[in-house]
Amino acid sequence: MSNTKVFILDGGSLVIDGFHVYWNKGPGGEVRFPVYSVLIDHADGLYLFDSGFDYDHVMAVLPFEKPQQTREQTLLGAIEKAGYRAEDINYVINSHYHFDHCGGNKHLKEACTVCHANEFGQCKCPQPFEVLGYSDMTFHPDMQREKLRREGKEIPVSPDSDIWTPKVELLTGNQEIAKGMHLIETPGHTAGHYSLLIELANRRPMLFTADACYTRKGFDEELIPSFHLDPVKAVQSVRRLKDVALKTNAEVFVSHDLEQFGQYKTAPAYYE
Amino acid sequence: MSNTKVFILDGGSLVIDGFHVYWNKGPGGEVRFPVYSVLIDHADGLYLFDSGFDYDHVMAVLPFEKPQQTREQTLLGAIEKAGYRAEDINYVINSHYHFDHCGGNKHLKEACTVCHANEFGQCKCPQPFEVLGYSDMTFHPDMQREKLRREGKEIPVSPDSDIWTPKVELLTGNQEIAKGMHLIETPGHTAGHYSLLIELANRRPMLFTADACYTRKGFDEELIPSFHLDPVKAVQSVRRLKDVALKTNAEVFVSHDLEQFGQYKTAPAYYE
Repeated sequence: MSNTKVFILDGGSLVIDGFHVYWNKGPGGEVRFPVYSVLIDHADGLYLFDSGFDYDHVMAVLPFEKPQQTREQTLLGAIEKAGYRAEDINYVINSHYHFDHCGGNKHLKEACTVCHANEFGQCKCPQPFEVLGYSDMTFHPDMQREKLRREGKEIPVSPDSDIWTPKVELLTGNQEIAKGMHLIETPGHTAGHYSLLIELANRRPMLFTADACYTRKGFDEELIPSFHLDPVKAVQSVRRLKDVALKTNAEVFVSHDLEQFGQYKTAPAYYE
Repeated sequence: MSNTKVFILDGGSLVIDGFHVYWNKGPGGEVRFPVYSVLIDHADGLYLFDSGFDYDHVMAVLPFEKPQQTREQTLLGAIEKAGYRAEDINYVINSHYHFDHCGGNKHLKEACTVCHANEFGQCKCPQPFEVLGYSDMTFHPDMQREKLRREGKEIPVSPDSDIWTPKVELLTGNQEIAKGMHLIETPGHTAGHYSLLIELANRRPMLFTADACYTRKGFDEELIPSFHLDPVKAVQSVRRLKDVALKTNAEVFVSHDLEQFGQYKTAPAYYE
């Protein structure tokens, strides 16, 4: 049995305002930030944590975020660069369903979609201030069912649930989803947000905060981003992650910090 | 018995970013906005709703908000301009305890301080992202008690509560605090926020939203400001105010809209 390998897949970049990076703190002004996914080659299967943004979606719905994404930075391009095929991915785990974390889900037709149960509910009935965040729901079973309905096609129904395809698995609580892979509840940014801790054979554990922490400074100073559902829970989640990092001696990988991202190894290089 | 008179007291202006006025919407850039208090001459007494900002406090703690305030725009100057004396005010009601709504409280030594019970608790133990908002607590009984302690003076204790002076009355729920004066719970911006509806003899009721709605556009489009404790409740509160305005045919007075403010009558002129 080979060691678990972790690939960071560069997914291009977007622009937001400094007041969005550091809520009510700033400074303001355009900030370009990286978007990435994490591919985990584990003995139990091939996992993807988040799937980046879809360039066409951003250009159509949020062009002011000025997406930059080369062919190699698309999800399919990045998976290929890491030496894998999209159809071999068994599970796509989304930290949450904001468009820059699930934009590639639509390409993973064979994978089981895994997320927090609260997120699955919220993304279909967002608060008015969450509508743009949850704007790329094309992969969602309900949307696919609706599409079939519009096209006059038959809608398959599984015997034990009304969710048919893609396969969906909803989780609550902290979960060791595979040996050494721990999902940690970090709500606040959204209703059901998960961060991911991965234990590896030859190095410190890797703690992927996802959007519970955009930047290293946010992690250190407990500054949350402006996009959130519950800022009180968001601050608690930063503290939870700091506690996890301390107890496990994990290296912290924040989600949207250009300077930090420059220090990460990206695919085809990997951590193990 | 004379009619109730309502005076709008111009309290000067501050600057924040457009992303603070319209959370996650903007556009960004400096926005100068008015701050005002409301003096109500009612058969039951003289009431003040909010008390503006203290220039020295803002310059010391938040100078980046670039306060502008003439002598006439200080709370004492504005009360005088309306033809009253600060010591005649019986009740100061604060929509909430952000520094630009309670900065003049310290001058109202004879008045009973009225606010929502949740606000009174929260302002002493704010979330980290609320610290600047709740930075002017000089009027708070606990702070005054602490000051006496530092000065080695005796601390009076009332027999039925540990709050001694200024007199404090804590409320919960919607309340008709005097005939035709209704406090309406509008939490979200802060833990315990009140808006105020005043019925008058010769005109439509006046609905003072306070910071549940900074601007008319925010009211119309249900856009909340970036400063908040619970954005979900904040949106609900905007909807509650829209409902109240509809049912009572009230004229809506938002808190921080320079264009709207230009259309308000300010003291010594008044509404009745």
